[in-house]
Amino acid sequence: MFDLKSYIREIQDFPKKGINYKDITPLLLDINALKSCADAIAEKYIGKGIVKVIGVESRGFFLGTLVAERLNAGFVPVRKPGKLPFDVYQESYALEYGKDALEIHTDAILPNEKILIHDDVLATGGTALASVRLAEKMKADIVGLNFLIELEFLNGRKKLKDYSVDSLSKY
Amino acid sequence: MFDLKSYIREIQDFPKKGINYKDITPLLLDINALKSCADAIAEKYIGKGIVKVIGVESRGFFLGTLVAERLNAGFVPVRKPGKLPFDVYQESYALEYGKDALEIHTDAILPNEKILIHDDVLATGGTALASVRLAEKMKADIVGLNFLIELEFLNGRKKLKDYSVDSLSKY
Repeated sequence: MFDLKSYIREIQDFPKKGINYKDITPLLLDINALKSCADAIAEKYIGKGIVKVIGVESRGFFLGTLVAERLNAGFVPVRKPGKLPFDVYQESYALEYGKDALEIHTDAILPNEKILIHDDVLATGGTALASVRLAEKMKADIVGLNFLIELEFLNGRKKLKDYSVDSLSKY
Repeated sequence: MFDLKSYIREIQDFPKKGINYKDITPLLLDINALKSCADAIAEKYIGKGIVKVIGVESRGFFLGTLVAERLNAGFVPVRKPGKLPFDVYQESYALEYGKDALEIHTDAILPNEKILIHDDVLATGGTALASVRLAEKMKADIVGLNFLIELEFLNGRKKLKDYSVDSLSKY
């Protein structure tokens, strides 16, 4: 594997003071590096019968579609409230202050379909867990959760301990 | 080409009364149909020296990355204000009531680079024109603008008349 971290730019105090944001746009700019990431992710799941890849709004869309393509799986966007136009299931999750929610189309996944959940960053695990709850509501068979970046010090994995979790780079 | 419109679901009165929304999630669910679209778009631009594909937030990300991959070009997200963490250029555009803006990272495109701008829907052309203005600010060589869907009755092309505009399906 190439040096993924050299394509991730750290931005101090974004979106607010004290947060060291991981900017993946340098990775997006280098198509060969981006393809290598998609290949590396897909390689872990190929042959596991995955028929849908969930990508979490909106940075999970970038690699989500590329991974879906490689797994020959459909792509399912999980989005913030009000963005998906058809009937949805909704799941709330806590933020530092207040709460937010994610939605999925009710026809996006059939019972027992094997799925992969992808997002760019695993931080506290709040959005990942909300995505899991949505997939559980639809009786999906969650093969795994995959992240480009994992912030280990935030212990997001703890929230996801019932599932297989993988990340390409750890901080 | 397969029947693209059979993968586009029309939702009446979304996001508000009187709008007949074009829902592309059925297309995303069928990976073969989605790949066919990416192939069909890329075919129009291959050999034109495109080195960057701009995808407009956030439904332009789905096919944007797949097309970038096929053209072996970098991917550049154009996003709503506050989402991109590095230095940005910003361009405002009018909405029916009030205005909104789009941003691009200042290091995303170098002068004279050949680029393609992609979004899912060409409606009134407001966001497309804002994307063009951002690319012009960076002295990009805009090879074309490409849309999955064009709502011809809204005359978006008129705003983009200095550029080559293409769409896969017209309503």
